[in-house]
Amino acid sequence: MRAVDLIARKRDGQSLTAEQINWFIATYTRGELPDYQAAALLMAIYLKGMSREETVQLTLAMAHSGDVLDLSDLIPYSVDKHSSGGVGDKTTLIVLPLVAACGVPVAKMSGRGLGFSGGTLDKLESIHGYNVNLSNEDFRRLVREQGIVLSGQSNDLAPADGKLYALRDVTATVPSLPLIASSIMSKKIAAGSNGIVLDVKVGRGAFMTNLDDARALAQIMVDIGSDAGRDMIAVLSDMNQPLGVAVGNALEVKEAIACLQGAGPEDLREHCLEVAGYMLRLAGRGQQWTDASAVRTLLQQKLADGSAFAKFRQLVGGQGGDTTMLDQPSLLPQAEFVEALTAASSGYIAELAADEIGIASSELGAGREKKGDPVDLAVGLEVHIKVGDFVQSGDILITIHANSQVKLAACRARLEKAIRLSPTPVDRLPLFYETIYGN
Amino acid sequence: MRAVDLIARKRDGQSLTAEQINWFIATYTRGELPDYQAAALLMAIYLKGMSREETVQLTLAMAHSGDVLDLSDLIPYSVDKHSSGGVGDKTTLIVLPLVAACGVPVAKMSGRGLGFSGGTLDKLESIHGYNVNLSNEDFRRLVREQGIVLSGQSNDLAPADGKLYALRDVTATVPSLPLIASSIMSKKIAAGSNGIVLDVKVGRGAFMTNLDDARALAQIMVDIGSDAGRDMIAVLSDMNQPLGVAVGNALEVKEAIACLQGAGPEDLREHCLEVAGYMLRLAGRGQQWTDASAVRTLLQQKLADGSAFAKFRQLVGGQGGDTTMLDQPSLLPQAEFVEALTAASSGYIAELAADEIGIASSELGAGREKKGDPVDLAVGLEVHIKVGDFVQSGDILITIHANSQVKLAACRARLEKAIRLSPTPVDRLPLFYETIYGN
Repeated sequence: MRAVDLIARKRDGQSLTAEQINWFIATYTRGELPDYQAAALLMAIYLKGMSREETVQLTLAMAHSGDVLDLSDLIPYSVDKHSSGGVGDKTTLIVLPLVAACGVPVAKMSGRGLGFSGGTLDKLESIHGYNVNLSNEDFRRLVREQGIVLSGQSNDLAPADGKLYALRDVTATVPSLPLIASSIMSKKIAAGSNGIVLDVKVGRGAFMTNLDDARALAQIMVDIGSDAGRDMIAVLSDMNQPLGVAVGNALEVKEAIACLQGAGPEDLREHCLEVAGYMLRLAGRGQQWTDASAVRTLLQQKLADGSAFAKFRQLVGGQGGDTTMLDQPSLLPQAEFVEALTAASSGYIAELAADEIGIASSELGAGREKKGDPVDLAVGLEVHIKVGDFVQSGDILITIHANSQVKLAACRARLEKAIRLSPTPVDRLPLFYETIYGN
Repeated sequence: MRAVDLIARKRDGQSLTAEQINWFIATYTRGELPDYQAAALLMAIYLKGMSREETVQLTLAMAHSGDVLDLSDLIPYSVDKHSSGGVGDKTTLIVLPLVAACGVPVAKMSGRGLGFSGGTLDKLESIHGYNVNLSNEDFRRLVREQGIVLSGQSNDLAPADGKLYALRDVTATVPSLPLIASSIMSKKIAAGSNGIVLDVKVGRGAFMTNLDDARALAQIMVDIGSDAGRDMIAVLSDMNQPLGVAVGNALEVKEAIACLQGAGPEDLREHCLEVAGYMLRLAGRGQQWTDASAVRTLLQQKLADGSAFAKFRQLVGGQGGDTTMLDQPSLLPQAEFVEALTAASSGYIAELAADEIGIASSELGAGREKKGDPVDLAVGLEVHIKVGDFVQSGDILITIHANSQVKLAACRARLEKAIRLSPTPVDRLPLFYETIYGN
């Protein structure tokens, strides 16, 4: 097989065979296929697309390019969630303990963030001592002992995806549906998940800015997972405004703690109940938890009775984190300067641009521009308003947590442009748009 | 400027600016832009195309990526020819001395062949001692002293083209009109030509197999040259059957000698008179040689009176070649086995597949599959027939010159499939289809 023939085939709009895709991924992973041939193929895929069969094959080839996690001796059914990423999205920190508190074991690998904010790993590192680099043995031990573990993604899983993603990043081939979908799903499949709930964000603060694109991405991922024998549910959720109040690493951990204790912002709690409910539904596989309202009652009870928070405490403690920081969240990293942005006039919130708010938070230091950059865990924003709210002149709209006066001033200027008021009432935004079920 | 932004722009079908194209070529030539980014851009160009302005800019950027030859102190007007390559195409060996014999100095750089047969340089190396690697000083001295020089292309001319061509070869981005056109024209412009006659071959033995594609390629090259201030003429010539009789390096030199002495195959002579006529027309720039029939008479006279051959002798001698080989062509490399392929039945030649004949010759050893492979100068074919000819059973169709009995047998089998006879008369093929003039 010659790489140039594969490239020509895709260039001319033909489908690649399973054998060709497997050969490409295997030789590329072994370093036997040069980056320039992979780059030409990626651009041809970007411009000519891939069929469902090709995308499934690419996903499976990448998933099997390295180790595949097998937890079947420890847990009968491994359920996972994935969010396509948004501003203020601390869902994993809440949903995982919540699901585990219902007796469903969760063993998740997460990534670091790029762009708007830190990822789940960065957020967890706000907690002193929390170890995101577990050995395989410790990972398995924690699943067995406490039914919950949340660690960094092992480099041994889906190495082809890591290599290809780095190449896509510098060859303008990132925003391709089959490439995005196969990248995400290959990691999930390599992590040994039996059931996956996908949370695909839609809106100006998300990768997919309109519903059609988000639906297409969600559908491809559900298709891939289904064809690969996984149980799949995807939700399309709003990301035109931030989720919850907190944006920033330690601030989001604080908010997650509140939520796990039955408090916290209503939209965040609702979002987490929905995602956790779908995870239970998959884990029950039609035998239990089919009654959505009973599931919701169960989950609410786990928040109210402290068992969800107890599970989070167990998670953090098990991975070496300082649990006194959970009991006294004021011990979490705090920014030096805390200032309020107030309303200059009265009106209804018409726009609360999630992208601009994300950039503002990132510029404070909460996010990173490129892989390996440090993240300031203390800084970020508390966005106290939602689209549709009525505010009086002088009301506090956003609290800014900064470690530099210069950055604080720049942040304030950007935020002022992110908020638009209307003299007349404005509709609230939905939390969710659609749900897509696998077959 | 960031490479990834350029790639994204072309990927999305937008035009690149002159500044962007210049930056890309300059950084790539300096080795500061990695092959994988260039490969992604090439595939985007392949699939999204380039406007006339972009193609001109790319050509000029490549032409100026290294040295640009300036012969203006030696010759008032530099006229060049370029053939897109075909089977049995030894035109340069005949046309150059012919034009020089008319008092128009010619200073040409040629390439080695890939695929079907050796290039002009390979053919010339059939002549013992002929030096294709002239120093800049010797190149200039020979132009001055004898008005004719024919050397290998200096690596210092259009280095960006050499680098990009090597990358296109392994990334399935060779057959793109703007990339082909800019590659050819950048070398011609870097070689300092004022006027260029393009001989674009059409047919199954050519790169362009149909007239529309060939016309498009010719038109783009004429446009580029015109926009770059060069005088341009392109002819579209047939390459469904070989040009002349000889296919193979020494065999073609032998045929060129015959042609320069007023003999040789009629189609080859006609072809050369036409191309040489256009070169004189450009070199005269409307002041002389505007009367086509007078030009033809002049050229025929140069063949008849021995002055064209004398010029060839001077060329070969000036570059260290053994001129006794020209006077006694039997001294040129000879193959060990010479056998005839005869007609199994009678009929009209309906097909004489140039591509198959080219491959047959190449498999004998006359061509190379990849850069740097050696070429067997002695082997090749003499194709004694043309489409439309009537042959009797037992007539010699092709003489095979081989240095291996195994290869000879394989060649014979392939040639039998390349020839198709018809019981009814078949039209002859034209030599030329069209002429395209620059503005």
